[in-house]
Amino acid sequence: MSDYVAPITEMRFVMDELAGFPELSATVPDFAESTPDMADAILEEAAKFASGVLAPLNLLGDQQGCQLTADGVTTPAGWKEAYKAFCEAGWNGITGPVDYSGHGQPATLGLAVKEMVCSANLSFSLGPLLTGGAVDALVTCASDELKAVFLEKMVTGEWTGTMNLTEPQAGSDLALLRSRAEPQADGTYRIFGQKIFITYGDHDMTDNIVHLVLARLPDAPAGVRGISLFLVPKFLVNADGSLGARNDAHCVSIEHKLGIHASPTCVLAFGDNGGAVGYLLGEANRGLEYMFIMMNEARMGVGLQGIALGERAYQHALAYARERKQGRDAVTGEALVTIDQHPDIRRMLMLMKCRVEASRAIAYVAAGMMDRAHAHPDADERKRNLMMAEFLIPIVKGGGTEMGTEVTSLGIQIHGGMGFIEETGAAQYWRDSRITTIYEGTTGIQANDLIFRKLMRDGGATARLLFGEVTDTFKTLATIERPELQAIAQWLKAGLDTWVTSTEWLAANAKSNPAGVLAAAVSYLNLSVTVCGGWQMGRAALVAADKLAAGEGDERFYKAKIASARFYADQVLPLALAYGESVRAGNAALALVTDDMF
Amino acid sequence: MSDYVAPITEMRFVMDELAGFPELSATVPDFAESTPDMADAILEEAAKFASGVLAPLNLLGDQQGCQLTADGVTTPAGWKEAYKAFCEAGWNGITGPVDYSGHGQPATLGLAVKEMVCSANLSFSLGPLLTGGAVDALVTCASDELKAVFLEKMVTGEWTGTMNLTEPQAGSDLALLRSRAEPQADGTYRIFGQKIFITYGDHDMTDNIVHLVLARLPDAPAGVRGISLFLVPKFLVNADGSLGARNDAHCVSIEHKLGIHASPTCVLAFGDNGGAVGYLLGEANRGLEYMFIMMNEARMGVGLQGIALGERAYQHALAYARERKQGRDAVTGEALVTIDQHPDIRRMLMLMKCRVEASRAIAYVAAGMMDRAHAHPDADERKRNLMMAEFLIPIVKGGGTEMGTEVTSLGIQIHGGMGFIEETGAAQYWRDSRITTIYEGTTGIQANDLIFRKLMRDGGATARLLFGEVTDTFKTLATIERPELQAIAQWLKAGLDTWVTSTEWLAANAKSNPAGVLAAAVSYLNLSVTVCGGWQMGRAALVAADKLAAGEGDERFYKAKIASARFYADQVLPLALAYGESVRAGNAALALVTDDMF
Repeated sequence: MSDYVAPITEMRFVMDELAGFPELSATVPDFAESTPDMADAILEEAAKFASGVLAPLNLLGDQQGCQLTADGVTTPAGWKEAYKAFCEAGWNGITGPVDYSGHGQPATLGLAVKEMVCSANLSFSLGPLLTGGAVDALVTCASDELKAVFLEKMVTGEWTGTMNLTEPQAGSDLALLRSRAEPQADGTYRIFGQKIFITYGDHDMTDNIVHLVLARLPDAPAGVRGISLFLVPKFLVNADGSLGARNDAHCVSIEHKLGIHASPTCVLAFGDNGGAVGYLLGEANRGLEYMFIMMNEARMGVGLQGIALGERAYQHALAYARERKQGRDAVTGEALVTIDQHPDIRRMLMLMKCRVEASRAIAYVAAGMMDRAHAHPDADERKRNLMMAEFLIPIVKGGGTEMGTEVTSLGIQIHGGMGFIEETGAAQYWRDSRITTIYEGTTGIQANDLIFRKLMRDGGATARLLFGEVTDTFKTLATIERPELQAIAQWLKAGLDTWVTSTEWLAANAKSNPAGVLAAAVSYLNLSVTVCGGWQMGRAALVAADKLAAGEGDERFYKAKIASARFYADQVLPLALAYGESVRAGNAALALVTDDMF
Repeated sequence: MSDYVAPITEMRFVMDELAGFPELSATVPDFAESTPDMADAILEEAAKFASGVLAPLNLLGDQQGCQLTADGVTTPAGWKEAYKAFCEAGWNGITGPVDYSGHGQPATLGLAVKEMVCSANLSFSLGPLLTGGAVDALVTCASDELKAVFLEKMVTGEWTGTMNLTEPQAGSDLALLRSRAEPQADGTYRIFGQKIFITYGDHDMTDNIVHLVLARLPDAPAGVRGISLFLVPKFLVNADGSLGARNDAHCVSIEHKLGIHASPTCVLAFGDNGGAVGYLLGEANRGLEYMFIMMNEARMGVGLQGIALGERAYQHALAYARERKQGRDAVTGEALVTIDQHPDIRRMLMLMKCRVEASRAIAYVAAGMMDRAHAHPDADERKRNLMMAEFLIPIVKGGGTEMGTEVTSLGIQIHGGMGFIEETGAAQYWRDSRITTIYEGTTGIQANDLIFRKLMRDGGATARLLFGEVTDTFKTLATIERPELQAIAQWLKAGLDTWVTSTEWLAANAKSNPAGVLAAAVSYLNLSVTVCGGWQMGRAALVAADKLAAGEGDERFYKAKIASARFYADQVLPLALAYGESVRAGNAALALVTDDMF
């Protein structure tokens, strides 16, 4: 299996030139110390850790998987030690709150570190990802007492966190949730119910696990407005901070899954022996609201997983294609070349490369907006960035994960028959990727979020802001007399035109034809993803052209960036036309379909 | 897991109305007995066998896999018995030669039977598929003596066959093949070499296995013109037909694969103990030529696998979507509906359905052409049908398999989180599908075959024949005043226009820009697949509209057919525009890419 090498040059390019990282540290006081130099140092260390410690465990973790024993879940060999080293090096708290021993780095930088961790070992990355979500929840809505007991240990990774939403009958539809919480005289609650699909719901890496659990109070209204959020530790914590009694929250089985074998996916039973002790977080009946606050980060994180797997699969396929000799050069007839010389293999490699780059750029740009939304000193800037970031998040999540599945599949294809053999490692990325379009909201749910929450809530104002940015980009591209940039400008304009037309179609049909809008949602998401990718690739090409014109920096890198953007324009942006047609066809065909026709 | 139900009504519609099955039996003397009534009887029996015997073993076979023991490879529990029943019922020889106890049924009918077997249990189907290929090879090039010893036993399935092409250094590029054959004084040969990826290379279902092996004679020219084909039985056969000595051909390992776990994929060592006894088939150095004769059928068979998996995944997802309750009706607000009522789930189900239907129609039509090419009394008809069938075969193989991978992925998506759990069964179809775009020639190789062999060898004459057929279809559609048919006509015309333009681009660039043509090949294949699917869906819609106008037959079925064709036109045919742009962009972007840019 090939080694993973973190694409630091590319990451820094995207951070600096597209996401405005230097300007972030210069203008946002909270991030004053996060200078480009510090970012360099952090990314280099993270890259060493990802390549040296996490990547070598990836295939092994897939093969061994997790086991449920009488003492709980055991992780694969080496997992516990790797996790300890991960926490000791401070990676768990890279973006965590400074008040609780976190490093408080901006999301833009944190995203690059997290990408490395996900590329190296997706199953491993999920524990810290869930813990990070739980930390955000506690910061948002826990009492000072609970914060004092739990937060620092979770930020440092001494304890991990979980998110307990799903129940057998309640997946995408949390209104159907049945777990219940009974108030006790001492102000605590007893939690009862069964939760499924709980990532790292049990494991042997830490002494304690902090479960965040959605449940209903006895007097709660029906539906999503009657759900509260509780903190349920695996072990109760004594007043002196030492661990007390084992709580009534147990892993009763783990799933046999298509991928992420080393990430334990647990069925957790709460209250089978009298009730699990839980503590209410924030106010009663606002649990879902608190969850949604964290949703942006969680969805960014899952979008990133698709990108990270795409990057790893690309590196793997490239290494194989550079070694594997098969066939003559199809043009020169030169005997026995490595397969990376065949036009169709080069096409697939470039498709992998440019799609990963486009998705990464959108994600990092969105993270830069989130950083400004949280911490910019100017309120208008905060608001404007929040609107744009929230618009982009379903695009990062839906687009990054669908891309990840497609790109890891191309990775297998480049391997030929060897790609189908598990020892090669290429298949694992594809299997692992397959959950990403499902968890934290399926692609269909991302599409609905994009249309009904992000696009329509402000009457299209944020969309118009983005259309304006894309327009600026293609117009600037068109002013530069390089044929590559002209081609990119032309396709970006075509993509934007169909994005605008399709957006107008949605607006016109929202009230009169909601079934049509719903049927068109995923195509609209695909369209948005494709054009936003072209926008960022176009911006990257502009920077590269400037640098080349000025004779600055790494010529090879900037030429590659222009080639990649041109490839995206020629080979990916035309899909926008098809997606636009698909949107505007609405449900004309589906309307003919009755249940008995399936 | 849902049961598999063979889609007999749909199969008969495609056979009768699109592939001209009744006319085949009426005009081709060889198939005079293959009447529609007989086809009904055969398909009903095959459906019972597939659903009742093979389908229940599918998940179990995936979980158990095969084992290599000291005595050779063992198949999963129930495999041996199912194979015995399969052969006893005569399914192994359904299209086999009548002279050797085959049933001599047309490929069109055989394809429907094989689709059922593949849908029910892909791993199981591979043994008979490979045996069938070996039978075709023996019919083509074996001596009468060898035929007398081996053919009947292989046609009935008493012995299975294998195809030994690949070696570690020789996959797509068979010129690199190194296995060798040493002539012996008695006219036999001793075979030496190692072969990999040998499907059913060893197993415990039959007493003997007949390996067909590509190897080089001592005086053979280098490259593909120096490869000969040998028959190497696992056990030598005595003059009286009884089994003799164990031959020096042994399975030394089996692969741990992403899918088709129950199909043993073997590394076979020939001659480790002095040489495996082999018999030359046909003339020396013509081995690859004989293999190519069988290639058409083999590629049809693999394209069919994609279709069969797509069908099974569709049935599975539909059954789940009809049971799973989640969410309110998005339009009426009605509480808690089954998810098949949600527009995005309906969109995915229809996309699965129409894509499977389109691919199936192309495959069955191509099989009908093959039947005429082999057995039509008129030489011109034979020739015309052969040209068209050969043009369509890379479209069936490349298109059917890529579709299969995409459609089985949609099947997982419809299941949500449950799709990622192996016990659900949805993931297996996706895993199993992933080999189909690779073996028997990758999608890239299909694309090259389409362009360099099928399109260009006759200067585009066959392509123009097909363009004419598509033109007739959209023109006829346009004459019928139903809005659905008008919409189909419009998109079919648009798809054809871009197919024609892209074909002209290829012709114009073939000599001046071969790297551009090679880079465009897979996009051209995708374009051809998309338009050919629209052509067949358009033809189907025409038949359905006629039947509805005449008040004949099953109204529900014909209305569903029109809805499905309309959905394909709205949601799939627009992709042709993007593929066309991608073709005509050629290698403009790739030409900018140097090796150091990856």
